[in-house]
Amino acid sequence: MSDTALPAALLTALSELLGPTGLLTDAGDTDSFCTDWRMLYHGRCAAVLRPATTQDCAKAVALCAEYGVPMVPQGGNTSMVGGATPDASGKAVVISTNRMTRIHTIDHADLTMTVEAGVTLKAAQDAAAAEGLMLPLSISSEGSAEIGGILATNAGGNNTVRYGNARELALGLEAVLPDGQVLNLMRRLRKDNTGYALRQLLIGSEGTLGLITTAILQLQPAPRSRETALCALADPQAVLTLFAAFRKQDPAAIQAFEYMSGTSMALVNSLIDGASLPLSEPAPAYALVELGSPRADDSLRTLMEEVLGQALEDGLVTDAVLAESESQRQALWMIREEHAEAQKRAGASVKNDVSVPLSAIPEFITKATAACEALIPGIRVAPFGHIGDGNIHFNLVQPEGMDPKDFLAQDHAMMDTVANIVRTLDGSFSAEHGVGQLKTYMMPSWRGGAELDAMRKIKAALDPQTVMNPGKIFPQA
Amino acid sequence: MSDTALPAALLTALSELLGPTGLLTDAGDTDSFCTDWRMLYHGRCAAVLRPATTQDCAKAVALCAEYGVPMVPQGGNTSMVGGATPDASGKAVVISTNRMTRIHTIDHADLTMTVEAGVTLKAAQDAAAAEGLMLPLSISSEGSAEIGGILATNAGGNNTVRYGNARELALGLEAVLPDGQVLNLMRRLRKDNTGYALRQLLIGSEGTLGLITTAILQLQPAPRSRETALCALADPQAVLTLFAAFRKQDPAAIQAFEYMSGTSMALVNSLIDGASLPLSEPAPAYALVELGSPRADDSLRTLMEEVLGQALEDGLVTDAVLAESESQRQALWMIREEHAEAQKRAGASVKNDVSVPLSAIPEFITKATAACEALIPGIRVAPFGHIGDGNIHFNLVQPEGMDPKDFLAQDHAMMDTVANIVRTLDGSFSAEHGVGQLKTYMMPSWRGGAELDAMRKIKAALDPQTVMNPGKIFPQA
Repeated sequence: MSDTALPAALLTALSELLGPTGLLTDAGDTDSFCTDWRMLYHGRCAAVLRPATTQDCAKAVALCAEYGVPMVPQGGNTSMVGGATPDASGKAVVISTNRMTRIHTIDHADLTMTVEAGVTLKAAQDAAAAEGLMLPLSISSEGSAEIGGILATNAGGNNTVRYGNARELALGLEAVLPDGQVLNLMRRLRKDNTGYALRQLLIGSEGTLGLITTAILQLQPAPRSRETALCALADPQAVLTLFAAFRKQDPAAIQAFEYMSGTSMALVNSLIDGASLPLSEPAPAYALVELGSPRADDSLRTLMEEVLGQALEDGLVTDAVLAESESQRQALWMIREEHAEAQKRAGASVKNDVSVPLSAIPEFITKATAACEALIPGIRVAPFGHIGDGNIHFNLVQPEGMDPKDFLAQDHAMMDTVANIVRTLDGSFSAEHGVGQLKTYMMPSWRGGAELDAMRKIKAALDPQTVMNPGKIFPQA
Repeated sequence: MSDTALPAALLTALSELLGPTGLLTDAGDTDSFCTDWRMLYHGRCAAVLRPATTQDCAKAVALCAEYGVPMVPQGGNTSMVGGATPDASGKAVVISTNRMTRIHTIDHADLTMTVEAGVTLKAAQDAAAAEGLMLPLSISSEGSAEIGGILATNAGGNNTVRYGNARELALGLEAVLPDGQVLNLMRRLRKDNTGYALRQLLIGSEGTLGLITTAILQLQPAPRSRETALCALADPQAVLTLFAAFRKQDPAAIQAFEYMSGTSMALVNSLIDGASLPLSEPAPAYALVELGSPRADDSLRTLMEEVLGQALEDGLVTDAVLAESESQRQALWMIREEHAEAQKRAGASVKNDVSVPLSAIPEFITKATAACEALIPGIRVAPFGHIGDGNIHFNLVQPEGMDPKDFLAQDHAMMDTVANIVRTLDGSFSAEHGVGQLKTYMMPSWRGGAELDAMRKIKAALDPQTVMNPGKIFPQA
């Protein structure tokens, strides 16, 4: 235990409370908790605390608070923005939820599941599926991302167009507040107007107001019919028009509606094995449409064929392929899911996880593409994403042959170029990734004035010592 | 202006700012703003401020805050719990939103509408309907209730089983904070993870953290097919089982799922003209089921007939009638909507707007019925409500022939009897009506400890002078 900077008395108390598996202090053990998965931040910590229960977590937090030790909550360590990584001072402890992995109950009458914070999203999905139900949240890191972190960051993903973000799925919550008090909001009620929406406040607060320990999640009946199609279209406006056509018929049937630019698709087709384009020729834009319903009849097939048939007749969709089997469906989804990997293989890239109102998407993509191409000639503008939510991953891939370092040296210029256009369209600089430490610098100009002022007041009220995940969301004053 | 207790300098400044229509000080003009519609509270106020714009509202709030004058935001004055009524001191001003009645935009691509706080829910519904869209929120006071108040109290109603409470419909918000700052959260984004969920915090805060001035609401395509049925069943468990059967087939089709007890239905049938039971004989329990879809095909009719047919075959439903026309549909809804009026005609009654987890509803109704019947022999336990949300209006009607005063003298005993059972089932003492001033006394025992403590800290942080709607939500310390 030679590596820790913790006061001896605190170390003893934590050791007695958590035992040897619950307290890591050797650098060899703690290192992996101090670097984010994108490798953007390399921090240090005084210890990693791994409580196995809410009560132990609460006692550990109270002890750290007593000594004024900063705490960094961490789930699956899959933050895109360094939200769960300690700073370089080595003064903070990481509190990991990865020993809190119990799935308490799945209730068929209430359509809820009660899970501890350290359960991975995949494990929660599987547990629901095993009972014929569905946890309708899906993100690419679901094998590692844990429920606590997912709620702390209000994760989004592919199915939010139908079921909302993580926020909308959480019916109940339990959290440990910065002073070690347990906040018990574990009510599985669909209507409860008894005071401030503390559950909503904690969700998306990125661990800065408390550490989520348990949650009650809403489930859905598992879909018994599903229709999936990949469509070729002329431009993002056509993709939006197709979305509106499906939405007008049945918004509840749309399980996912994903956009892929021609540039990004071409990278996938050329760089990913087994991901060739299942259409006759490349197009400027694509939509991956998935309809789903718990009904087992053929009404979904009818809906898909009617809307797509009309769109083909109108020339809105130039080509389309329908999945005729589950393996064909998975092949279409594989193409969508490989966009990030294909871009990685194509060289250095800059990610912009932005959102704008649906109506502004075409203008956004047109303007941002032109601006980036003017900034760096030869740049490959390769957007894709959850267009049904207005959420575009406006990713920028380096020109072929350019030194990646030269490209990345201009990352702020590229991000600012995109952000400035997003701002003129009343959009957001972080649709689903959160602020973490990567984007704190953007908060004053985007969320300044009364908004940031109110956030700071709430933070100070609930965490007057600033011990809970310091340095996240808020820029240093 | 002789009736006001405001400092002369403040009065002059407010008068210059708001003009004669914007500032009422004569008791004859202000009286109607000082009594809630249930006539439970008769307060007084120093003036009624009626700003016509957000900017005027912000300036008025800043002036009042400067002088430490308490402010009571008020929309349509339809609170069930005295949430918009000033106390008897006469020191507060009422700030009415009823001059802020502009509907700014309805956007078909984004499926949103932007409305000022003083627009009534009915006017907003009608404006959406005129454009072929639907604002899916419906409450009995919708002709008077205004959008600002609806969001401040997170109103619920008949369609929350499908579309959620008011909270889930609000995509953007603008509010004036207790110090007069304008908080602009007018982003119509479905994904935006950039700091604390201030919009969520304001929604349901009952005007204690600020005054909502404008909102962006999510719309839906208007339904093009609808199926409505009234079913007779043996008990609440059977109603829940029927609900689960529909939900398993298609939760998104369920626009409303209402429960009515046999006792409450009998009062409607006997006391309301034109509301006779459209079934062959009375039953212990009824369900009003409404399915809806923007699809124009016959899939909804098939769904209704399949589920109901099976339920009749299984003996789950003992009798049922399907609406074959819009007028028949309205007749069925009239029966549901007259329950409150019928109970009023039957004598004195005590309302309990409670919620429990769905799975606990049968146990709740059985236990609470027995307990109330033991407390007051002859009492008519007449529950009804939004069973699909777990929200039961567990209303108690006086025994026939009893003096109403004798009955109402025991109101706290009845409310506590019901509440104690709700509490053992992890329910809520206020599902959709809020806390207001009527239920502040329940907060310490129900939401005490860390929860109320956190709420108080947030209140103190954002309203350190306690000038914004004082006496609501929080019991006097």
